[in-house]
Amino acid sequence: MSAVDADLLQVTRTTDERELRALEQKYCSWGDTVHYLEPPKFFDRAEGSYLYDREGIPYLDLQMWYSAASFGYGNQRLQRALTDQLSRLPQLACQYLHPEKVQLAAAIGRLNESKFALDGRVHFNVGGSQAIEDSLKIVRNATGKSLVFSFMGGYHGRTLGASAITSSYRYRRRYGHFSDRAHFVPFPYCFRCPYDKKREDCDLYCVKQFEKNFESEYNSFWDAKARQPEFAAFYVEAIQGTGGYVIPPAGYFPALKRVLDERGILLVDDEIQMGFYRAGKFWAIENFNVAPDIIVFGKALTNGLNPLSGIWAREELIAPATFPPGSTHSTFSSNTLGTAVALEVVRMMEETDYETMVCRKGAYFLTQIRALQARYPKVIGDTDGMGLALRIEICGEDGHTPDRELTDRIFAEGMKGDLDAHGRRMGLVLDVGGYHKNVFTLAPSFTITDEEIDLGVELLEQLIRRCAPGRF
Amino acid sequence: MSAVDADLLQVTRTTDERELRALEQKYCSWGDTVHYLEPPKFFDRAEGSYLYDREGIPYLDLQMWYSAASFGYGNQRLQRALTDQLSRLPQLACQYLHPEKVQLAAAIGRLNESKFALDGRVHFNVGGSQAIEDSLKIVRNATGKSLVFSFMGGYHGRTLGASAITSSYRYRRRYGHFSDRAHFVPFPYCFRCPYDKKREDCDLYCVKQFEKNFESEYNSFWDAKARQPEFAAFYVEAIQGTGGYVIPPAGYFPALKRVLDERGILLVDDEIQMGFYRAGKFWAIENFNVAPDIIVFGKALTNGLNPLSGIWAREELIAPATFPPGSTHSTFSSNTLGTAVALEVVRMMEETDYETMVCRKGAYFLTQIRALQARYPKVIGDTDGMGLALRIEICGEDGHTPDRELTDRIFAEGMKGDLDAHGRRMGLVLDVGGYHKNVFTLAPSFTITDEEIDLGVELLEQLIRRCAPGRF
Amino acid sequence: MSAVDADLLQVTRTTDERELRALEQKYCSWGDTVHYLEPPKFFDRAEGSYLYDREGIPYLDLQMWYSAASFGYGNQRLQRALTDQLSRLPQLACQYLHPEKVQLAAAIGRLNESKFALDGRVHFNVGGSQAIEDSLKIVRNATGKSLVFSFMGGYHGRTLGASAITSSYRYRRRYGHFSDRAHFVPFPYCFRCPYDKKREDCDLYCVKQFEKNFESEYNSFWDAKARQPEFAAFYVEAIQGTGGYVIPPAGYFPALKRVLDERGILLVDDEIQMGFYRAGKFWAIENFNVAPDIIVFGKALTNGLNPLSGIWAREELIAPATFPPGSTHSTFSSNTLGTAVALEVVRMMEETDYETMVCRKGAYFLTQIRALQARYPKVIGDTDGMGLALRIEICGEDGHTPDRELTDRIFAEGMKGDLDAHGRRMGLVLDVGGYHKNVFTLAPSFTITDEEIDLGVELLEQLIRRCAPGRF
Amino acid sequence: MSAVDADLLQVTRTTDERELRALEQKYCSWGDTVHYLEPPKFFDRAEGSYLYDREGIPYLDLQMWYSAASFGYGNQRLQRALTDQLSRLPQLACQYLHPEKVQLAAAIGRLNESKFALDGRVHFNVGGSQAIEDSLKIVRNATGKSLVFSFMGGYHGRTLGASAITSSYRYRRRYGHFSDRAHFVPFPYCFRCPYDKKREDCDLYCVKQFEKNFESEYNSFWDAKARQPEFAAFYVEAIQGTGGYVIPPAGYFPALKRVLDERGILLVDDEIQMGFYRAGKFWAIENFNVAPDIIVFGKALTNGLNPLSGIWAREELIAPATFPPGSTHSTFSSNTLGTAVALEVVRMMEETDYETMVCRKGAYFLTQIRALQARYPKVIGDTDGMGLALRIEICGEDGHTPDRELTDRIFAEGMKGDLDAHGRRMGLVLDVGGYHKNVFTLAPSFTITDEEIDLGVELLEQLIRRCAPGRF
Repeated sequence: MSAVDADLLQVTRTTDERELRALEQKYCSWGDTVHYLEPPKFFDRAEGSYLYDREGIPYLDLQMWYSAASFGYGNQRLQRALTDQLSRLPQLACQYLHPEKVQLAAAIGRLNESKFALDGRVHFNVGGSQAIEDSLKIVRNATGKSLVFSFMGGYHGRTLGASAITSSYRYRRRYGHFSDRAHFVPFPYCFRCPYDKKREDCDLYCVKQFEKNFESEYNSFWDAKARQPEFAAFYVEAIQGTGGYVIPPAGYFPALKRVLDERGILLVDDEIQMGFYRAGKFWAIENFNVAPDIIVFGKALTNGLNPLSGIWAREELIAPATFPPGSTHSTFSSNTLGTAVALEVVRMMEETDYETMVCRKGAYFLTQIRALQARYPKVIGDTDGMGLALRIEICGEDGHTPDRELTDRIFAEGMKGDLDAHGRRMGLVLDVGGYHKNVFTLAPSFTITDEEIDLGVELLEQLIRRCAPGRF
Repeated sequence: MSAVDADLLQVTRTTDERELRALEQKYCSWGDTVHYLEPPKFFDRAEGSYLYDREGIPYLDLQMWYSAASFGYGNQRLQRALTDQLSRLPQLACQYLHPEKVQLAAAIGRLNESKFALDGRVHFNVGGSQAIEDSLKIVRNATGKSLVFSFMGGYHGRTLGASAITSSYRYRRRYGHFSDRAHFVPFPYCFRCPYDKKREDCDLYCVKQFEKNFESEYNSFWDAKARQPEFAAFYVEAIQGTGGYVIPPAGYFPALKRVLDERGILLVDDEIQMGFYRAGKFWAIENFNVAPDIIVFGKALTNGLNPLSGIWAREELIAPATFPPGSTHSTFSSNTLGTAVALEVVRMMEETDYETMVCRKGAYFLTQIRALQARYPKVIGDTDGMGLALRIEICGEDGHTPDRELTDRIFAEGMKGDLDAHGRRMGLVLDVGGYHKNVFTLAPSFTITDEEIDLGVELLEQLIRRCAPGRF
Repeated sequence: MSAVDADLLQVTRTTDERELRALEQKYCSWGDTVHYLEPPKFFDRAEGSYLYDREGIPYLDLQMWYSAASFGYGNQRLQRALTDQLSRLPQLACQYLHPEKVQLAAAIGRLNESKFALDGRVHFNVGGSQAIEDSLKIVRNATGKSLVFSFMGGYHGRTLGASAITSSYRYRRRYGHFSDRAHFVPFPYCFRCPYDKKREDCDLYCVKQFEKNFESEYNSFWDAKARQPEFAAFYVEAIQGTGGYVIPPAGYFPALKRVLDERGILLVDDEIQMGFYRAGKFWAIENFNVAPDIIVFGKALTNGLNPLSGIWAREELIAPATFPPGSTHSTFSSNTLGTAVALEVVRMMEETDYETMVCRKGAYFLTQIRALQARYPKVIGDTDGMGLALRIEICGEDGHTPDRELTDRIFAEGMKGDLDAHGRRMGLVLDVGGYHKNVFTLAPSFTITDEEIDLGVELLEQLIRRCAPGRF
Repeated sequence: MSAVDADLLQVTRTTDERELRALEQKYCSWGDTVHYLEPPKFFDRAEGSYLYDREGIPYLDLQMWYSAASFGYGNQRLQRALTDQLSRLPQLACQYLHPEKVQLAAAIGRLNESKFALDGRVHFNVGGSQAIEDSLKIVRNATGKSLVFSFMGGYHGRTLGASAITSSYRYRRRYGHFSDRAHFVPFPYCFRCPYDKKREDCDLYCVKQFEKNFESEYNSFWDAKARQPEFAAFYVEAIQGTGGYVIPPAGYFPALKRVLDERGILLVDDEIQMGFYRAGKFWAIENFNVAPDIIVFGKALTNGLNPLSGIWAREELIAPATFPPGSTHSTFSSNTLGTAVALEVVRMMEETDYETMVCRKGAYFLTQIRALQARYPKVIGDTDGMGLALRIEICGEDGHTPDRELTDRIFAEGMKGDLDAHGRRMGLVLDVGGYHKNVFTLAPSFTITDEEIDLGVELLEQLIRRCAPGRF
């Protein structure tokens, strides 16, 4: 055995954490989000709502991989679907067909027919960003235009194309000129209304402001002579994900959609984080009574067992005459392991009334965190939730000023794994989001029990008491 | 059960092929490459070097999912790695660490140290295109420039960013303006030399032509006053994949690299298709004696069991000070199922001398197809190979004019599944590539036996005799 | 003489209007604005405040070539400066120096020193758009960024670069993708407040809205970690020109400038239409108490006798170390005929107190049109003015709804040349501008007399009575 | 008089050179090309072929403002046309018509009908770059595409749009990302053949190389399925101007045009420097037997008295239905002073046989500089000429290596004004161009006499003998 081989053997088999950390320091890119926490955390095992660290300490996970593992870690039924496919058709070039691909596409197509009364088709890819890229192709192809609207606070991925329509400038700053940078529109984030209105009497002022853009050609978006908009589509998350699980007021989307329809602008609904019952409905947008032109989905589709993602588009945008063979391609799109798991997810959703389950658990959870807010008004400025997508906004003593430092402290403290869960050591996995990095975005497993919800709230309270000692 | 649910139940469980085809017609996007063949082919099972259709007929696969399944369909060892991880840590948000990620990154980093004497780090993502996008971020961040060179005939993916540096205009035409379109440079495709030279006495004229671009600021690429190039990097495949497994002459890459070094232009080596021993070395570029600045990899890394992909970059391009936490992100990057399988792939490569194995089998296979070429000079214009990446260029009777129609005919005939494999019905899975869509690009499994190679060549000969009756 | 030559001789010497119109139909591009009026109008002679048509009928011109001929048609002193230069140095390549260039640059530089207490330099070009392009180069060079803010309703020219920052989408629609499209911000157009506020108690809500853009990185413009904006500059007209001579409220620009300074964003002041006393001060921006980083000027600089234009920029943006020799070039920049006339303009401005003159005449004119508005409240919705830049907004009977049709009718009627000027036939030259094409933007000659102002108002009244018979 | 006014009075009236230089140092941008020579040169007077410095020393000008003053400095006939217009219609907003505009457009239209048998129209602007921008609008509007080919060594102006299609990267480097950067194609510069061919037997290899771009979609420019090119037009100078007056071989343009026609790519002919008989024909392209789709012109059109420029385009590209009213606009386009002078230029060209005159003088001049080359083979590597566009390429002793230093020395020495013109002190005005800044591009006045040509060559010889003492 050569020295190189011997060395590699050692590297690929070491289990010593100190050595692993040294290797990570030297060989891993830190360009991902691992080093947001110093030192980063190793996890070893996952089951149900829990992650376990290398010492075996459980961490109650209230964020389930940004909603990618909605059906619980180690979900046996879904893992069986994976191993079944593994034993049969573990690989297949995506230029050939296999039944699960067709079944999965058909199921989503049929569902959307029943929901929106629209014909449409499904196109698969891997990773949410690549599905977003496919949707951009559909939009550009159908409209002949490249510019789109999207929301301040919106997040659609980190490829160059997706970064151009994702609000945060920090994601673009070092990467050159973004020729297709979206025009970002304020989201109806009522707790921090961009127009300082009150929901009670705002009369959806924000939609009116958007509509004004089309009043005169000098407002820059509309050619009244040609009756053409400069922008092809509006990319939305029905509920903002990374933006902090912000829930828009009822009526917002129908009003927005009316404007878009009048101006010939497509509505693209990014359901990557909120789709598949996270917000209580199959698609989060169903909560808001509008039919999108394109839906982009991913994450929970396979419960995190495979990066399978995809888009559904209205027939006229995606029919073979418009979007013909070879329009796009990706090696792992419709990979057989992914479609098998996803199909099983869809079957589970047929069999189980997730809508009722998620809404009930969500309502219970929201009640609990609202009570927490009532107890800690100098720490929690806002709570809200739809389905099992919940938000806790950490604020200063005035209940409004974002308190990012405290948020970070609570998060880091939860990762220490030394909370007291009725006598047992435990950690709490939270995720920080929001415009001001002061929001805990909760996306617990759909399998979470009421007891686990209670436990989660207790642990949260412990964290608050540890980290904000003078605030109660 | 509601009507919708009943309907879905039916859809998600149907196995009838006619019904599946009807569903595919209605609900599947045709924008991928499935409908390049009409009607598309269903496959049901995969094992070793064979795909099996729904009737159980085996198809010898000489293309192994564009090289994504190099270690054979249903490779037990790798599947075991997957199921092991499934039982332990099937899911983990990529902001946390798990050992396999670190081990895998370290193994690749160590290997590159030993190969190129360069420090560097690994960044993971899913799907080759997303890894390309990450590499573009690295390039732009490090150089402050967005434009790059890449090769005519080159293929780097189909996201918008990757399409901008992939040669085919067809992949861009309907998708708006590509602000970062690469400048595409002729590849040293000696069988069809872009400069009509002969390799014997060309003295690498093509490199000289490239170098001329920097002779005067009026040649558009070089500011002699500032000593700065307008282009940040040159994206290459050491051996072109989709371009038709074109192998450059020895000496080409060192000469090119010298020019790039003199002008401060990075070399980005796309090994997505050719990496991991496809061309007989761990990285295909090792055959050509140059050290790249960035390597992009994917496909065979997991033998097709997971879309895990990644990049390795030289330390100065990717060190945390340059590419700090949060520089990019992807939900499924370093997903635990992917890293587990990939790590097992690396372990296999430590234990087995793939270099010798692949080169031996490749040489044997090349000998066979060269003999075939000798028997059918009016059908096969060129054959070539490096490792188990082989090419057969189908030409007209002059042995040079590309014969796309015949190529398509042979391909389609192989898919019929009615060839005679010593009395047994069999199909042959080929893949068509090349500038003129007249090249069979062979990427057989590394597990292929000499007998299977012989069989493959026999089946090829049957196809030629069926499809080109007047040409022998 | 050849047939071609004879034909040309005829073409170049014809004076017959019917023949000229036939030639115009066939050989002139209609892509300019001539055919906004059908049939277009020929003029033959110009003097003082009057244009004369081919029949000798005078047209009182209240718009003076969009403010390019502020000092009166046929101004003898300025024409003498032109003919003097013609007899001495009529031509000189701009790579050599001539005194007038230096004197003119120095005069503007000194003036700005005294006005803004800032060092700076002047760079000449021809045509306002080219000066805008030069300013974009200065901005990009100094900041390393390409994106800018500009105003809805703003107009900066029609080159591709200038069109990208000019609000009207109609100017971009047919010309491909504008990679550097500005982000357009609502202008404080209080008569039609974009936020439906009232000036009395709005507390400059519009500035606050602009400032909100920098509150969170998710608002898309600001990287709080790096303390960097995505946008390099804000292009403004202090008073909007094509936008309809809209005058911002006092306090607006200082408040805006404070935000820009806090975020490191340059202020570029486009004075092409409003500079040189049109709005009562040398630069219109002087009315608003802010010091811009760059000033762009043109038009009235030569009283329309030469397209000379230019920019002034703060020393740190334009000093030779930053903007070195060869940074840009234009054959006719600092052409000797242009600098000679412009220098004479500056000398006139030294000798005459234009500030007092223009403000006095402007106040008188505004009083008159306000009286007109009082008489025709169902026709004129708004009047306003600063210096001799005045606006009359034609509205429906409610005094607010823009009435574009009536505006067009009045304009066309004025061009008929059959108004009654105390017994003499006369026409009235108006110009239509504004977001809704319902604003007469008046830019009379600085040489206009009170009698001519009275006459102008009388003629306007005649037009109103002819065109809006039921509205009084 | 205020202190500011007194100061300005002084500044605007100073004639002292030392003071002027101090003002220039402080208030003039150095971003133009004035400081290519240190110290820059002041000129005071111009007449015929001569510039005069402030001491009255004449400088024989062999470059006539890069060909803008082809008809001689102070041409009385043309100046009279200007003063005539000055006394009649010195100003007129370009939205109204005046006869000279129509006559001039018609004359050019008729000429092109007779030359190319094509209908077309003329659109005016000011400055060559703005005319180029208009042509880009025409191209984009007609094709729906933004990308164009242009030549290495080509120069089309310095607005951002023009810089994108002008070869020198130095002109782009500091100005951000150029989303529409042209693909630059090697020009047939036979003295330094980009492909190292010899004209005798190259068989226009360069055209063949260009044509190869369309052989396969993988060559990046052509979608064979859609039969569409990615590039809309090819911008050419028939003879390169700034590129060093490089004259292509006969046959080149017809061969290129055939390829363009086959691929549906427009030919845009930039005649800004070479039009109006500089190369012996009205348009330089007439020497090469192809009909362009668009012609862009400027400079000599007014003999430098006004920046008037324009484009002519084939009817189908520019007809009102395609390029309707309001498609573009520029305040000074078709300004009355410019059209009056330009019309007089056209009339002169009708009356005088410039073709014969320019060709005769050019031939004489070329003979003289060829003799000079024969005498100084170690200094002059190449001479060439077409009409009165002539080139002298300064090389090292091998007659080929570009000698930029010597070129600069000769240029600077000529500007000293101390050459001996038969006993009289004289200077020589040359201009340096070329890919390697080693070419004197001669563009003498059409009014130059044989004696002045002789004198010019004598002065050149004096310069060579002074600056290259060891080379003869």
